Amino acid sequence: MTLRILATGGTFDKHYDEINGKLSFGESHLPALLARCRLTVEVALEQLPLMDSLDMVDADRARILASCTAAAENAIVIIHGTDTMPQTAAVLGPAQLGKTIVLTGAMIPYEIANSDAMFNLGFASAVAQTLPAGVYVAMNGKIFAWDNVQKNKAAGVFQPL
Amino acid sequence: MTLRILATGGTFDKHYDEINGKLSFGESHLPALLARCRLTVEVALEQLPLMDSLDMVDADRARILASCTAAAENAIVIIHGTDTMPQTAAVLGPAQLGKTIVLTGAMIPYEIANSDAMFNLGFASAVAQTLPAGVYVAMNGKIFAWDNVQKNKAAGVFQPL
Amino acid sequence: MTLRILATGGTFDKHYDEINGKLSFGESHLPALLARCRLTVEVALEQLPLMDSLDMVDADRARILASCTAAAENAIVIIHGTDTMPQTAAVLGPAQLGKTIVLTGAMIPYEIANSDAMFNLGFASAVAQTLPAGVYVAMNGKIFAWDNVQKNKAAGVFQPL
Amino acid sequence: MTLRILATGGTFDKHYDEINGKLSFGESHLPALLARCRLTVEVALEQLPLMDSLDMVDADRARILASCTAAAENAIVIIHGTDTMPQTAAVLGPAQLGKTIVLTGAMIPYEIANSDAMFNLGFASAVAQTLPAGVYVAMNGKIFAWDNVQKNKAAGVFQPL
Repeated sequence: MTLRILATGGTFDKHYDEINGKLSFGESHLPALLARCRLTVEVALEQLPLMDSLDMVDADRARILASCTAAAENAIVIIHGTDTMPQTAAVLGPAQLGKTIVLTGAMIPYEIANSDAMFNLGFASAVAQTLPAGVYVAMNGKIFAWDNVQKNKAAGVFQPL
Repeated sequence: MTLRILATGGTFDKHYDEINGKLSFGESHLPALLARCRLTVEVALEQLPLMDSLDMVDADRARILASCTAAAENAIVIIHGTDTMPQTAAVLGPAQLGKTIVLTGAMIPYEIANSDAMFNLGFASAVAQTLPAGVYVAMNGKIFAWDNVQKNKAAGVFQPL
Repeated sequence: MTLRILATGGTFDKHYDEINGKLSFGESHLPALLARCRLTVEVALEQLPLMDSLDMVDADRARILASCTAAAENAIVIIHGTDTMPQTAAVLGPAQLGKTIVLTGAMIPYEIANSDAMFNLGFASAVAQTLPAGVYVAMNGKIFAWDNVQKNKAAGVFQPL
Repeated sequence: MTLRILATGGTFDKHYDEINGKLSFGESHLPALLARCRLTVEVALEQLPLMDSLDMVDADRARILASCTAAAENAIVIIHGTDTMPQTAAVLGPAQLGKTIVLTGAMIPYEIANSDAMFNLGFASAVAQTLPAGVYVAMNGKIFAWDNVQKNKAAGVFQPL
């Protein structure tokens, strides 16, 4: 069992730029974070362009789908922005790749106090290893099928349709 | 689906006492940690006496078994010291409670830099919701059946027998 | 010796808002931060409106001056945004209040990984207790007179004129 | 102005060893910590053997004195265990080196949540630059002359004799 982790950015991986005072994307935190998790499962980390998921266009989702299709692994975790996670899931779901693909992210960036990023990464890493082939969103302790999930933006939580 | 979390101490929950300069047990970090995880799954937190798992005796393991037996939930995560996690699993496994019981912990305490505690908690929380009834150890990205796991103390990792 | 600390916001005190995904101002981090510092010196914390120092207008600086004038203490630390710290210092300096007034802040918010906030707060707290009456900027290990300091915005450092 | 920082260990620099589960000494945290502080003052970091100050013997204090004597800088911060900080100060004080020497440390290790280490380092770094030649203990916002300081071990605070 090898786990593939696709980094695509999102709140999870945002970085504070001290020169312009804004949160944006630099180096991914994933390599340091995975070391910290002391993983004994084999992991293949693949870094796609890091972006805010509100900025994703069709080509970005096509690239994620291509990476999932090309992956040798059957267990895939995608680190993704929360705002359009269901949209990307809706591109991956109908493709029926025969792999267990789990989208996750964070409400608070990994590098900011009180972040939920590590919990969600751990949570998604288990879902990818245990559930049957399919596409799922796994956030804050709950697992959703790709075609029955939405982000409640006012409350900052994921919920069924 | 409600998740029961049993806190029993272990490295995960150790606290630095600034008066005596030692790591010991005070208030559990679990309530603050669970809030940080922004859980949307319902959780019942049960705190047993917090202890180093090297100090556990039969009565301590009997108490954990009793809590699992009494629990109304079918998904249970036990926060446990790493040194004797397989021994406690070996008490719970043969009891065949018909629930999914997952032992986890941490190599570095939650309150110390670079801790793996949150990842493991997230990981175990998914295993408890997804695997069939049984007793498992879930640590650092790998899942073990209760009767096929040991801690390699020299390397600080869990592995099959 | 009592130390007065004036909170005015700035990068130091910014807070990540998980609903809108932006850094803004909420509750000040100063009460929790001061507890963490385990101060044995007496401290009077005064919270003014928290703002980005780029948004400060004359009235905001007049309010800071009024607080310094009214303070019973002779040692004052002002937590301030870095972008216009020298401008506020230039309002306080000529007032010649006969108190030791030290402006400080942070390049990285207190709640973000790798923040310099605590170091700067400690640094400024000593400058306020040790230097003669006057107005100073104290950042990242260097002390500047109020009329000989500028922020090099490209490099993100304070330096003499 | 160059600041010399002598690392000698103490609670400040303790490191959690995940294999034996104890706090001990490994690599000093000072290089990473100083980078984090974004210091613009020039710093010379000198690492002596890292130890618990309860384990210090006369030879250890003689070595600290020798480093202070040999230092080209007039401003010196010593990171030291809290338990015998006054004893080391009592070795350095009578030597009358004509330098400003400031001992500091932490009640909570730098790598543990809620540590006061960074505040104390910042505080001591300013005291070393501003006070006249002499030997001082600077902890948690208060400055003490070397011959009028003690640690109240029950309360975990420094106070005058």
